[in-house]
Amino acid sequence: MRPDKTFFDRLAEAAKVETLPRFRSSLDVVNKEAGGYDPVTEGDKAAETVIRSLIEAEFPDHGILGEEHGNVGLGRDSVWVIDPIDGTRAFISGLPTWGTLIGFQEKGRAVMGMMDQPFTGERYFADGEKSWYRGPDGERQLRTRACSDLSDAILYTTSPDIFQVDERARFDAVRANVRLTRYGVDCYAYALLAAGFVDLVIETGLKPYDVGALIPIIEQAGGVITTWDGARPEAAGKIIAASSKAVYDQAMAILQA
Amino acid sequence: MRPDKTFFDRLAEAAKVETLPRFRSSLDVVNKEAGGYDPVTEGDKAAETVIRSLIEAEFPDHGILGEEHGNVGLGRDSVWVIDPIDGTRAFISGLPTWGTLIGFQEKGRAVMGMMDQPFTGERYFADGEKSWYRGPDGERQLRTRACSDLSDAILYTTSPDIFQVDERARFDAVRANVRLTRYGVDCYAYALLAAGFVDLVIETGLKPYDVGALIPIIEQAGGVITTWDGARPEAAGKIIAASSKAVYDQAMAILQA
Repeated sequence: MRPDKTFFDRLAEAAKVETLPRFRSSLDVVNKEAGGYDPVTEGDKAAETVIRSLIEAEFPDHGILGEEHGNVGLGRDSVWVIDPIDGTRAFISGLPTWGTLIGFQEKGRAVMGMMDQPFTGERYFADGEKSWYRGPDGERQLRTRACSDLSDAILYTTSPDIFQVDERARFDAVRANVRLTRYGVDCYAYALLAAGFVDLVIETGLKPYDVGALIPIIEQAGGVITTWDGARPEAAGKIIAASSKAVYDQAMAILQA
Repeated sequence: MRPDKTFFDRLAEAAKVETLPRFRSSLDVVNKEAGGYDPVTEGDKAAETVIRSLIEAEFPDHGILGEEHGNVGLGRDSVWVIDPIDGTRAFISGLPTWGTLIGFQEKGRAVMGMMDQPFTGERYFADGEKSWYRGPDGERQLRTRACSDLSDAILYTTSPDIFQVDERARFDAVRANVRLTRYGVDCYAYALLAAGFVDLVIETGLKPYDVGALIPIIEQAGGVITTWDGARPEAAGKIIAASSKAVYDQAMAILQA
């Protein structure tokens, strides 16, 4: 049985109670990887705990893939994919471009998802057929932009520093052909793509919980999201998202050259 | 005579009427420089028009330095420095990290300033002595973070691509010594520095209207902002802003090496 929007909203509201009061407060940041900088906040852990307990109470037969507290039942038909605070570097900088990502998969395919930004009050949601936005400027259905040529595209990525040398060369080749490239903003870039303001997001090194909630939001808004090899994106890794098939094809021709 | 906060608020509210309805709508983007990508929206121009008319009605003897409509009386004792939409690339991407910048100078020195982000509802204001924040999470005095070592610092800049080759080498040398570097977000990075969440902003190619409003917000929150040569920042160009004198000194030692 699929969850409904009310349940997604409950999860987002419960997460918000743990994340928002900690945003722009002093944080105990823990390095998850020695040598790397991958902070995770108390809010991240507390929000995942409360999301998981709500899911387990309502859907005890569902699996859960989470960033903070491990995985349960990934082979089950219905699996939740959770990243309570995607964009922890934005979070610790006070920048409201992080988001709470809650995705839902059926038989390994992402079919529903929510991205919530509680500081700005924006919520992006894919209900299984369509994508929706609710925010300070109202509610509306999300539709990607019908950008027909790569030369008109706005491209986002987290940072030029995320790419390996060979990946960087391919990314730079795409970048040389777009109208505008901007860095930063993590999951927020995918939300802006679904909303029709951004045409391309190209990233690497992503985990399944980084994209699980975003896949249906983009696809059900009319966009395309795959790996750089053109495969389904649920396993993450190298990801390209595009506002239109035309821009996707043109970018892929360069990425795969 | 100095303006009061009420007058700054009036200017920001008047600008908001022109900018916010155009944010996340279809925009007629005009390229200001052939060959470069420097979009300016109708909102940018309309907001500057309304800000200037309010200033001219209230303070007819003040000068005005504006991005869109030229300069008036820059030699006068009191001069306003205006950028109605700083961060036009963010604006056209739907990203709410642009801001309306309204600065006030006395005898060439920035003494008051406001940065308004109408989508998130955040307003940063320097009253001549102290800096203040008002936003969805309340009101408070702004204070920069007492970061004592560069290795703990969070560094922001618009993009690695803004630097000339020699500038890039010096920027990269600083970057190699900080905890975290993030790109994007324009004036918003300076606001986050004033608010105590970011420790360094290092940029180049800035115009006086890009920093005029931000200088007093940073200085009156306890931060330091100068050119890369250590001079007063009002003329802009290469700018470094720091949350503390300690971080400033350590970054400058590298920038000037």
